[in-house]
Amino acid sequence: MPKVFNARALWSTESDPHRAEKIAKNYGIPNWTNDVSKVLNHPEIDAVIICSPTDRHAEQTIEAARNKKHIFCEKPLDLDLDVVNKTIMATKDAGVKLMIGFNRRFDANFLRVKRAIDHDEVGKINMVRITSRDPSPPPVSYIKSSGGLFHDMTIHDFDMARFLIGDEVDEVYAMAQSVNLDIAAAGDIDTAVVLLKFHNGVICYIENSREAAYGYDQRVEVLGSKGSVACDNKYPNQVVVSTNESVRRDLPLHFFLERYMDAYVAEMEAFIHVCTTNGASVPVGGNDGREALLLALAANKSLAENRPVKVNELRG
Amino acid sequence: MPKVFNARALWSTESDPHRAEKIAKNYGIPNWTNDVSKVLNHPEIDAVIICSPTDRHAEQTIEAARNKKHIFCEKPLDLDLDVVNKTIMATKDAGVKLMIGFNRRFDANFLRVKRAIDHDEVGKINMVRITSRDPSPPPVSYIKSSGGLFHDMTIHDFDMARFLIGDEVDEVYAMAQSVNLDIAAAGDIDTAVVLLKFHNGVICYIENSREAAYGYDQRVEVLGSKGSVACDNKYPNQVVVSTNESVRRDLPLHFFLERYMDAYVAEMEAFIHVCTTNGASVPVGGNDGREALLLALAANKSLAENRPVKVNELRG
Amino acid sequence: MPKVFNARALWSTESDPHRAEKIAKNYGIPNWTNDVSKVLNHPEIDAVIICSPTDRHAEQTIEAARNKKHIFCEKPLDLDLDVVNKTIMATKDAGVKLMIGFNRRFDANFLRVKRAIDHDEVGKINMVRITSRDPSPPPVSYIKSSGGLFHDMTIHDFDMARFLIGDEVDEVYAMAQSVNLDIAAAGDIDTAVVLLKFHNGVICYIENSREAAYGYDQRVEVLGSKGSVACDNKYPNQVVVSTNESVRRDLPLHFFLERYMDAYVAEMEAFIHVCTTNGASVPVGGNDGREALLLALAANKSLAENRPVKVNELRG
Amino acid sequence: MPKVFNARALWSTESDPHRAEKIAKNYGIPNWTNDVSKVLNHPEIDAVIICSPTDRHAEQTIEAARNKKHIFCEKPLDLDLDVVNKTIMATKDAGVKLMIGFNRRFDANFLRVKRAIDHDEVGKINMVRITSRDPSPPPVSYIKSSGGLFHDMTIHDFDMARFLIGDEVDEVYAMAQSVNLDIAAAGDIDTAVVLLKFHNGVICYIENSREAAYGYDQRVEVLGSKGSVACDNKYPNQVVVSTNESVRRDLPLHFFLERYMDAYVAEMEAFIHVCTTNGASVPVGGNDGREALLLALAANKSLAENRPVKVNELRG
Repeated sequence: MPKVFNARALWSTESDPHRAEKIAKNYGIPNWTNDVSKVLNHPEIDAVIICSPTDRHAEQTIEAARNKKHIFCEKPLDLDLDVVNKTIMATKDAGVKLMIGFNRRFDANFLRVKRAIDHDEVGKINMVRITSRDPSPPPVSYIKSSGGLFHDMTIHDFDMARFLIGDEVDEVYAMAQSVNLDIAAAGDIDTAVVLLKFHNGVICYIENSREAAYGYDQRVEVLGSKGSVACDNKYPNQVVVSTNESVRRDLPLHFFLERYMDAYVAEMEAFIHVCTTNGASVPVGGNDGREALLLALAANKSLAENRPVKVNELRG
Repeated sequence: MPKVFNARALWSTESDPHRAEKIAKNYGIPNWTNDVSKVLNHPEIDAVIICSPTDRHAEQTIEAARNKKHIFCEKPLDLDLDVVNKTIMATKDAGVKLMIGFNRRFDANFLRVKRAIDHDEVGKINMVRITSRDPSPPPVSYIKSSGGLFHDMTIHDFDMARFLIGDEVDEVYAMAQSVNLDIAAAGDIDTAVVLLKFHNGVICYIENSREAAYGYDQRVEVLGSKGSVACDNKYPNQVVVSTNESVRRDLPLHFFLERYMDAYVAEMEAFIHVCTTNGASVPVGGNDGREALLLALAANKSLAENRPVKVNELRG
Repeated sequence: MPKVFNARALWSTESDPHRAEKIAKNYGIPNWTNDVSKVLNHPEIDAVIICSPTDRHAEQTIEAARNKKHIFCEKPLDLDLDVVNKTIMATKDAGVKLMIGFNRRFDANFLRVKRAIDHDEVGKINMVRITSRDPSPPPVSYIKSSGGLFHDMTIHDFDMARFLIGDEVDEVYAMAQSVNLDIAAAGDIDTAVVLLKFHNGVICYIENSREAAYGYDQRVEVLGSKGSVACDNKYPNQVVVSTNESVRRDLPLHFFLERYMDAYVAEMEAFIHVCTTNGASVPVGGNDGREALLLALAANKSLAENRPVKVNELRG
Repeated sequence: MPKVFNARALWSTESDPHRAEKIAKNYGIPNWTNDVSKVLNHPEIDAVIICSPTDRHAEQTIEAARNKKHIFCEKPLDLDLDVVNKTIMATKDAGVKLMIGFNRRFDANFLRVKRAIDHDEVGKINMVRITSRDPSPPPVSYIKSSGGLFHDMTIHDFDMARFLIGDEVDEVYAMAQSVNLDIAAAGDIDTAVVLLKFHNGVICYIENSREAAYGYDQRVEVLGSKGSVACDNKYPNQVVVSTNESVRRDLPLHFFLERYMDAYVAEMEAFIHVCTTNGASVPVGGNDGREALLLALAANKSLAENRPVKVNELRG
């Protein structure tokens, strides 16, 4: 598998018109443009990586698909289910591959947990816990355009739940609060527990917080008939300092860039593999994006109506 | 505080009529009887410890109270709220102390978590997780007379939640399944997650399983504004064996007797302290028993009706 | 095995003439005396526990042996090899059992390490590390009468090395320094590493310090052909507090009473078992005391002459 | 600091005459050669990295120095002290920078330990332990040309000891055995403990084994007046699997390439920084190479003569 991905062209949406040029220069990318269509139509380009703002994902994916490019698109395809369905359909019609950026599936810890499940190290799964906490809340401006906690943050956990359990969700119940007054004023929540009942009976509970003072907290624990498998956070070192006050270590890796740097690389390698290998199937496809979106919609509905919500209510 | 509790008399309900005699002999207890009233009325006895089957708790507590004995009673006082209220009232009327056997409050780990909260090590609490799993399901005969998972097992976690959070619950939602077919056939559940919304906004999620292959699993984790405090299980040793296959340690302490042996001793010391010290307040009283019972009733109702249930619905 | 050891008589050497009386009263011991011979000769006594100062051990052991009592004696029997040999001989001549108080052999962690070795979990042993550090240096007055670091502190580690490796030492080399100026002034050392070459080729390195700010530090690590087995310290709880500063836990159990409380109980149970069971062999006998003493003597000689010393040089 | 080091030219000593060509092609290196002098004399080259076999290090370093190239040379410069001195002198005369490849100084764990020392987290250092074990012995052919355990393996630990303690060694004592019969037959050892007495009084004990079944084992522990700092090994994940048999995790990173991959990158970044920054001092220079070599020579002499050896005996 090639370790280096030679980009042919780069487009940047940033307001700074010189940004694409600068980056291209720095990294030796031969072409750059401020017109995204020039990338999506470029005759020498086989595949595109779409990391634009969420509201451009669907249109750019559709345009790329029509130009027969394979597509890696950051999650979510869109916040509207119909748009998502239409976009997925466009990639199918065009016969191109569509991969969604659920980076955590490529993290060494979660992959090892998945392997424990697949290799029957813990037997039949009965219960799954997903803990996902950010080190500190984003600015309220971000919160306002984020689509809300379930779309912005829990969406990764919904995908992780489906990835680990290997089934679809029947029913969703959410309980939440807003600890941060600014977030509350913006109409969002920052602390939540979401229960998922899967069709196969497995119960999954996801817990989120926008503020864990000690840093990014990303753990899962699976209870099966033969035992459990759980992963802890990653730390910058394995050093312990013992004094007359405490036995302590440094904080875990602070946020997603540090924690998932290796996962992002593995994700890109997987996309390159998919694009360059006949018959290779996409590890995280459009349907995965759609199902996670449905769970976010169901969680929002559960919270609004304070009742358990069947996912089928939202399939329309 | 006396380390040795010199029992004056012993009563045993066991079908074996020689059991009380044997135990009394072994432990040097001067009096024994097969007639419980002889203990509850004994003129030299100041306090009694009631560890009989649940359906005898209330009547024996009331009889002891009328005889002006202080009472330590294993949880629950009763499965019926009215009986519990009547029993508590009887001890109040008699002016005797009533302590309920929520042994986990005396465990070094949970006490340390509580201390971290009380000493503001983690700031204002936002979320609490309680994990409580048994090593293997009890016989179905036990299940049938247990009152069900929430009354038998979760009751301890309900008390722990109230103990740690220091507030009362507003609303309860429960999701559950029966992995074990015999337990399902007996009409009970063995795998459950219960969400508690406290009046102060704190969200607590309790997860229970009747079967954790690796042994008794008793952990809590508290997320506050300044960080988190969490406890792990207790192990019989701190030994790690590393081979070409794995880095491994022995299983955690297998069940409640091993895990809570020290807690049981501390619990008894606390009861003795309460009985022998003027003005000492009971660390876990009748009201604690009643509130935990209410939460079990609410969880059962939530499960039966598949909806969040306000605790006040059950106060009658 | 009886859990309660009913003492028949008590003698205390303390300068306070009322001390023995008080203790006897507190613990319900029927007889007490300030004359040790009354205990050692008592017709109803089968076995004695000698915890007097080191310089009384040998004479009291010999008197007890002559009176046909089994003997548990705190280490060391004496600091002089000839006296030790004579004392051991006296117990053999009398046909009584002599057990030496190397309490660490009864600690759950070290027993588990020993089991890993005996059950071939780590293969043939090649190297052993013993870490043994006190939380803080004793008063200089104690240092002066202690016999020095190797006799007072390392002696336990010498026994542990022999216990784990199951062989005798061929050669000893010691390197040391005195960090504490008062200890240096008293002619003793407080920081040392001792290397032991066993006849079977195994290398053992013991490291001692009189001052570990975080508390009592008692660990071993064994490297064998199939892997390693290591034990960590014991902690008062399994609680971790994570804030924006660190991920920390409380200090390990502070000193030997806390750390080895369970080991002392198990040690006494073992002695009672030995005294009450026909054919039961003593788990730590006079020869174990003598061999550990020889290693302390060899370490002192190595330090004095700055050269490796054969243990046989000291056997005389 | 540049993250990408654009190599101008490549030379490979491998017997395969096409090897340099292939690698150059793969990595886009414009020039390649089978004649090392063409690299060492190349007019566009400012700095060279010498990773050839040990017996070429000195001559190539000297040639590079004469051509005014900065030099990064893998350890050791040579096994002969005079040659090392002459080589260092050549780089000084030429006014070029010489950096020695002690990669462990750039490992996040050891750097964190060093930082704890430098920032006075553990007070004045009294004792240091360095554990360094390979997962399995190399082929005997390698052993024969390795210069022996102390030159090949312990040399890194000697450097680590000097790095952490920040002082020079006064005296060395080594105890060793050959567990592996082939290694014994080749006249080398595979299991050793080396004691270092530093001029400032600190005692350091290094323990090495050629065979740790569980994988590469690289730990240090420092005891200071305020406490200790210790590092554990690095693991491929933070996953724990608990079954009815054990609580286990995967093995640590297997060998030096996995364990020190990040350290090698940081080491190269440091070299580039040194070469491109006016006044930047070399983090590991020729003198560090020489002092580590002296310690290996002293350890060999100690082993041969079974006595503590003053390092000054070897300075000549």
